[in-house]
This record gives sequence, structure tokens and C-alpha cells, in this order.
Amino acid sequence: MNEFELIANLTKSLPTNQNVLVGAGDDCAVLDFGVPDKLLLFKADAVVEGLHFTKDTPPEKIGRKALARCLSDIAAMAGTPTAALVTIGLPKRFEPEFIGKIYGGISALAEKFGVAIVGGETTANPDRIFISIALLGTVLRGKQILRSGAKAGDAIFVTGELGGSLAGKHLEFEPRLAEARWLAEHFPIHAMIDLSDGLAGDLRHILKAGGVGAELLKTAVPVSRAAKLQARTSARTKPAFTAALTDGEDFELLFTIAGGDAVKLLDAWKREFPELKLSCIGKIVAGGGVTIRDKNGARTLNEHGYVHFT
Amino acid sequence: MNEFELIANLTKSLPTNQNVLVGAGDDCAVLDFGVPDKLLLFKADAVVEGLHFTKDTPPEKIGRKALARCLSDIAAMAGTPTAALVTIGLPKRFEPEFIGKIYGGISALAEKFGVAIVGGETTANPDRIFISIALLGTVLRGKQILRSGAKAGDAIFVTGELGGSLAGKHLEFEPRLAEARWLAEHFPIHAMIDLSDGLAGDLRHILKAGGVGAELLKTAVPVSRAAKLQARTSARTKPAFTAALTDGEDFELLFTIAGGDAVKLLDAWKREFPELKLSCIGKIVAGGGVTIRDKNGARTLNEHGYVHFT
Repeated sequence: MNEFELIANLTKSLPTNQNVLVGAGDDCAVLDFGVPDKLLLFKADAVVEGLHFTKDTPPEKIGRKALARCLSDIAAMAGTPTAALVTIGLPKRFEPEFIGKIYGGISALAEKFGVAIVGGETTANPDRIFISIALLGTVLRGKQILRSGAKAGDAIFVTGELGGSLAGKHLEFEPRLAEARWLAEHFPIHAMIDLSDGLAGDLRHILKAGGVGAELLKTAVPVSRAAKLQARTSARTKPAFTAALTDGEDFELLFTIAGGDAVKLLDAWKREFPELKLSCIGKIVAGGGVTIRDKNGARTLNEHGYVHFT
Repeated sequence: MNEFELIANLTKSLPTNQNVLVGAGDDCAVLDFGVPDKLLLFKADAVVEGLHFTKDTPPEKIGRKALARCLSDIAAMAGTPTAALVTIGLPKRFEPEFIGKIYGGISALAEKFGVAIVGGETTANPDRIFISIALLGTVLRGKQILRSGAKAGDAIFVTGELGGSLAGKHLEFEPRLAEARWLAEHFPIHAMIDLSDGLAGDLRHILKAGGVGAELLKTAVPVSRAAKLQARTSARTKPAFTAALTDGEDFELLFTIAGGDAVKLLDAWKREFPELKLSCIGKIVAGGGVTIRDKNGARTLNEHGYVHFT
């Protein structure tokens, strides 16, 4: 058992109560507080200097990213964000103006999505900036979409384009809130997640939660220009398709829907969101694991997201 | 303007919306989600290695403290905690067993107070453990107690004994949840706060929020045994009374109530909570600032909590 498996085990036996519909393990917790038509969504996430941003990242973008990551988790449940708390751990020496700009980035994005910032605590974290945001949202009762629910025969869809997020998108992505709510309102979506760890890794969460497998069509996976450019110009050897599978922080929506609804969904999507690509990248199959099909046949994707060539 | 004043200023102009009854600046945010008889309380707080605990602190107590601090904030609003999210920043090298015990400390206290842990995220914080907890609770509509509301003529009360928390209490304090709810249910409490920064500092929050001042009776302030022992035996020169005024992390309740209700409250308290001291330590007066009265007369308490002897 490795360290993160241990932590996964620990979070399985956490205390619960009658308010909890979904606890640890989905994009957000789902709580019932007795609001007549709504359930509450509850999520916390952190960004850390040196990991999610650098000393050179513009402070507005640091703040923006910290909140946008949480908003993307609310989107993954088809919810609407409402109120956030910001906790910042600050090094011993910091520029007040810099912190002001971090708050500015958080506030600008919050206003765009109607989110109230209802608390702003600071503490010390002597070696680096650490920002933790807790976000509350709502979802119409019965309209929440979980990671579980994928069924054999489902079509697998992904919004936008994947890979190469570190070139810039990880600081500027748009949480797909309106898109996710529209999906939940108009179509019986079976399972949904936001892509934070990469398509290969996050697809496995859906497969594990549903007890199913997936077959992806290589040519259908939308590879971003950034991933292609990096594969051509940078020293790293990761091919663009591998980047699309394994790069983190795309923050696009990955979801499944009955195969029979796929064409109707694609047509309606093009009318509603003409600017945002929606791609059907494969199908859910019985069993487990991920295979990738191209003109040379089917290959198995291993646990780390890389294509296994035997 | 110093750095923390800047941050205080920043948090004054944060975005809000129609769900927010109380935003940044009280012990918890108070939110209205349309639950028929209840309002929601929302709070986040962090503990950081080297500041709130050390490398030698038993891990169960680290976890316990992280949650207990948030519970104390819910208590300060007369609320009931419901669900928490745990975010842990972990150094590069850590013992899974140690993290398991931190979770154990959180979970044990959560179970005691009926709190569900609905998410447990980990991220990296290479240099030290950083634990941020977000907590949701409820309070009966109209029964929430804010920091504002103190009026000239109010009696000022404090639970327990103050000072010397670092000797051990800061890891083992009991959040005064039942006591606060009982107070709100049975008496018209005007203002309440939990003592995290020390009596002198936290009293000023109540005074500032109410636009009033306070006069404390020196002999009425309950000085803890730990503070007295430290004043006698340790090398530090802080007298025990100063420790009771200025030491942080007591996590007792400080509240005010109309002077005419004070005796009735004390009598009822002794019957309800015979084990926990409740002290009337002074009164709210018009104007501002804090004076301390003893047999030699009245002295002004300066902004840093120390008695000013001129």
C-alpha cells in the first residue's frame, strides 16, 4: 500500500450523518439541509506556490486559478456556486500589494459567476504561499450528476481540447458551469467529472465508480494546439496524444450518456454552444480498463495513462 | 497602513450576493439558503506546523485542534456543526501512519459532535504540514449571535479560565457548543465571540462592532492555574493577569447581556453547567477603549493588550 492509497483508505471510514448524500470521493460533497428544491454542494481545494503556480505567476492569475478550480468541481456536479471562504498562508515577508492582487483575481472571477466571498483569513506559511478555498453551491434536487452511473453502451464526451495546459490554460480556463447545468437540464447525463488530473486518470474514476470499462477512439480525442506545439518544439518526448491523455489541469467536462442520445446531444450542443467543441471520444464497455483503438487495432492504457504497446 | 490592515481593507469590499446575511468579519459567515427554520454557518480555519503545533505534537492532537478551532467558531454563533472538509498540505517526506493519526484525531472529535467529514484532500506543502478545515453548520433563524450588539450597561461574561493555553489547553480545549446554544435559547445574549487571540484583543472586536467601550474588574477576570504557574516558574516576565488578558487560544466564550439579566443568568448557569466556571468580568460602557479597574483605580488597556500605567 502506498501513501496515497493509505489516505484513500482513511477517507473511506470518515464519520457521516443524516445530512450527507455523497461524502468524500466525488467532485463535491452533496448535502441535504432541507432546502425545499435544492441540495448543497461543498468543496475545498488548495493551490500551493511551486506546485500550482510559481513566483513569477501574476498574482491576479493565482487568485483566479484558486477559485476557478473549485468552480470547476461545482460544474462537474451540474451545480451553481454561491459562497466561498479564502484561507491564505503567507510567507514571513510578503508584499501587501501582491496579496491585494491575489484577492483581486479571486473577486473578479467570483463576481463573474455571482459568488460571494464571505470570509478571508490569513495565517502564516513561512516558506511559500498556500491558498485554500472552500466553496458552497447548490444543485436542483435530482439534477446532481455524480461520477458513478456510467453504463455499458454509453457514449463518452469531452468538452474543449486536451493537453498542454501548463502553457497557459491552467491559469485561464473557464469553469464549464453554464454548460454543465444545460446538460443536466436537457439530457439524462449518466456520469460526469471535471478533468483535473488528465483524461486517462479522471476517466478511471468514472469507470471505477460505475464498475465499467472504456474504449476510446484515438482520432476522436481532441488534442489541443498547445499540446501539439509542445510536442513539436520542446525537448520533452511526450507525443501530443499522450499529453492529451495525461496532462493535468484541463478543467474540461468528461461525461457519459446513453449511446442513443449521442447524436441528439451533439446537434443541440452545437446550437447552444457554437464556440465550444464537444467531442464523442469513445464508449463505455462492460468489464474494466481502458483500450484505445486506432487504425492498427486496440491497445491497453496502463494505470499511469500511457499506452501499453504489447 | 500595515499589512494586516491592508488585508482587512481588502476583505471589506469582497463580492456578495442575496444569500449572505453576514460576510467576512464575524466568527462565521451566516447564509440564507431557504432552509425553512435555519440559517447556515460557514467557516474555514487553518493550523500550520511550527505555528499552531510542533514536530513533537502528537498527531491525534494536531487533528483534534484543527477541527476544534472551527467548532469553537460555530459555538460563538450559537450554532450546531454539520459537515467538514479537510485539506492537508503534506511535506515531501511524511509517514502515512502519522497522517492516519491526524485523521483519527479529526474523526474522533467530529463523531463526538455529530460532524460528518465529507471530503479529505491532500496536496503538497514541501516544508511543513498545513491543515485547512472548512466547516458548515446551522443555527435556528433568529438565534444566531453576532459580535455586534453590545450595549452600554451590558454585563460582560467569560466561560472557564484564561491564559497559559500553550501549556496544554490549546491542544485539548472543549468547544463550548452546548453552552452557547443553551445561552441563545434561554437568554437574550447581545454579542458573543470565542477567544482565539486573547481576551484583550477579542473584546475589542465586540467593542468595535458595537461602537462601545468596556470596563473590566481586575479581580473578576478568571486567571487559569496554568497562567499562574507559568508566571511563577518560567523565565518569562509576563504576570499571570497579563497572560489572562493577552494569551491566545483560550477558546472560551466571551459575551454580553443586559446588566439586569446578569444575576438570573449566573444562577441558571450554575444549575445547568456546574462544572464550568462563568465569570462576570465587567461591563460595557459608552465611548470606546478598555479600562481595567482595581483597588488603585482605573487604567487604560492599550491596543496590544497591555495595561498602560499612566
